[in-house]
Amino acid sequence: MRLRIDLAYDGTEFHGWATQPGLRTVQETVETALAQALRVEGVRVTCAGRTDTGVHARGQVSHLDIDEEVLAASAGRSKVAPSDALLRRLNGILPEDVRVRRVAEAAPGFDARFSARWRRYAYRIADTPALLDPLRRRFVLGWPRELDLAAMNEAAAALTGEHDFASFCRRREGATTIRRLIELSWSRDPQGLAVATVRADAFCHNMVRALVGCLITVGEGRRPPGWAYDVLAAGVRDPAVTVVHPHGLTLEEVDYPPDDELAAQAVTARVVRTLAPEGGR
Amino acid sequence: MRLRIDLAYDGTEFHGWATQPGLRTVQETVETALAQALRVEGVRVTCAGRTDTGVHARGQVSHLDIDEEVLAASAGRSKVAPSDALLRRLNGILPEDVRVRRVAEAAPGFDARFSARWRRYAYRIADTPALLDPLRRRFVLGWPRELDLAAMNEAAAALTGEHDFASFCRRREGATTIRRLIELSWSRDPQGLAVATVRADAFCHNMVRALVGCLITVGEGRRPPGWAYDVLAAGVRDPAVTVVHPHGLTLEEVDYPPDDELAAQAVTARVVRTLAPEGGR
Repeated sequence: MRLRIDLAYDGTEFHGWATQPGLRTVQETVETALAQALRVEGVRVTCAGRTDTGVHARGQVSHLDIDEEVLAASAGRSKVAPSDALLRRLNGILPEDVRVRRVAEAAPGFDARFSARWRRYAYRIADTPALLDPLRRRFVLGWPRELDLAAMNEAAAALTGEHDFASFCRRREGATTIRRLIELSWSRDPQGLAVATVRADAFCHNMVRALVGCLITVGEGRRPPGWAYDVLAAGVRDPAVTVVHPHGLTLEEVDYPPDDELAAQAVTARVVRTLAPEGGR
Repeated sequence: MRLRIDLAYDGTEFHGWATQPGLRTVQETVETALAQALRVEGVRVTCAGRTDTGVHARGQVSHLDIDEEVLAASAGRSKVAPSDALLRRLNGILPEDVRVRRVAEAAPGFDARFSARWRRYAYRIADTPALLDPLRRRFVLGWPRELDLAAMNEAAAALTGEHDFASFCRRREGATTIRRLIELSWSRDPQGLAVATVRADAFCHNMVRALVGCLITVGEGRRPPGWAYDVLAAGVRDPAVTVVHPHGLTLEEVDYPPDDELAAQAVTARVVRTLAPEGGR
């Protein structure tokens, strides 16, 4: 059987999602906790968005294949459903910077990575002293000058749609940089923070942080709104585009189609993504 | 001249606001930074709400009396207003768990503590696993069972108004425990967290945390809504009322009257508060 596991984490103390020898990563932390909770070895989870070092997640989705007997045995004499018992035990084992929000049997055909229709990230900026909030300092970028969100939205609008985002991606051999950017918009949240909502079928490496860096330059008035499209159209990385600090970035949501379309979505995504090994950033 | 200084802090690593020998406190941290920024000794600040150990603030207000020449001299050749120059320098000196949000010359008659009309606190609770958020773990209490906010609001409604809150206060010799509780209500924030909004002219020691503890007992169904009023009416501390953990509590806002009423408000508050030495909790 396949379990869907929804996760939230503070990325500050992690070297990103993907396991790397000798480094603390979310994947290894979660797999170690699962192995302990399930009393099995060699647990492997697959996630929807392989976040970079310092990037956070509130809506990360992962899956895990497991024998139904192993899950039932791990629940012992617990009166709650085995998946709920697993959730509780995982949150007892995991360090406090990772929490499991939900454990459920996945629908047939579900794949955390390949069934996803889109990923949504938020990038948060405190651009005036009155917005500085030590309680949110781990996931909000402080910026010393006020940003013009109208100019940033004008620039952003020209970037949405399906494009080759090579100008905003770290290039990898044999990987396409064509993505469908569904939404890229700035607004003020109830506290007044500047928040970018960035939604795409998938992201290549550094893409959100490069897009945000480009738009900050526009928001400060150092470049006109049309510059963002010029960078995109040039098709090569522009040294004037800064890749902003990861700590303002949070994976907020991953969207999946209705259950009866999960398998078809996965087939399509596999074809597209075979050319683009990165699941999300 | 008197400066009004608005502050936000993460209370996790502080032993509360008020200076205590050998302990890290917000007051001493701010006074030390001010002394360095202004190049004077013996700086003393007065705040609106003397928060306890572990309690946070987003809307703390303080004041400081200072010679105009000292402020001007500290700004040096800065092109911005002396108060803005001070804000920038303070944020450069202060540790990252305290931020200055605003520095401005105070209106005549302003007193951060005695001119305040009310203080507003929020207490935040994540009462289902789906609400667990490691990014907010420092200021949100995790609770293992879902809370019935309707029952909690029914209980809370009976507590608002002017009452003797002795049942919810740590008693101090010679201090009145009569307070005017203007608002006590529970709602779900956009993330789904249970949030108590607690607003009063002032609070006595532990009062918000005891009120929240009482209402949680009701929200779990262990006591009926009417129990909260019974506790209030009894006039003595009830051992069944738990004082909840401080980390869910944040001082969000302090309200002041229009400038021409500041002095009159301070006179009134001084009379009332002489019987109640605590400015707020």
